[in-house]
Amino acid sequence: MELVVFINCFEVPEGAEEEFLTLWREVNAYARTKDGYLGHTLHQSLSTSAVNRYVNVALWASERHFTAATDEHFRRLVGSPAWARFRSTPALYEVVDRVAPA
Amino acid sequence: MELVVFINCFEVPEGAEEEFLTLWREVNAYARTKDGYLGHTLHQSLSTSAVNRYVNVALWASERHFTAATDEHFRRLVGSPAWARFRSTPALYEVVDRVAPA
Repeated sequence: MELVVFINCFEVPEGAEEEFLTLWREVNAYARTKDGYLGHTLHQSLSTSAVNRYVNVALWASERHFTAATDEHFRRLVGSPAWARFRSTPALYEVVDRVAPA
Repeated sequence: MELVVFINCFEVPEGAEEEFLTLWREVNAYARTKDGYLGHTLHQSLSTSAVNRYVNVALWASERHFTAATDEHFRRLVGSPAWARFRSTPALYEVVDRVAPA
């Protein structure tokens, strides 16, 4: 099993935070039911003017699990017109350098 | 003490990974000497064509510690002409939603 990290950075206009969070929670609730989902951390910028207002960092058991999870229903969720307002840059990552908190 | 998360997303052209990593390690080595630095995870995308080829997620003891760490020497490091090749979107974050790995 080779862990992968899914990171998605979201551009969210000021004032649209609640709309974004409602959409994100809907997608996240579905992803969490999937085999291989291990956890996530959703970050919100301290400044409302940060380019990436939200960054989600999620852990998956493997690339194969992630690919299986992003099925037809998942794609329908993230393909809804409401998402068009929020630019996102999703990708899968591996950890290449780490110093763990003491 | 209120933990903050510093996240920086880097756009790195294919083939420039080593140049980026050399620069990043130089800045990171300095940041790690600073009071309040708690750890980091540098992620590299599995695909070479991801918008954000690298994402660094670092933990700091507080916003005050982070601000103090980004001092004149730090700004000189990240202001070097070599960095101009790599677009980055740095910001401070708080965690707003989390499911920890089991």
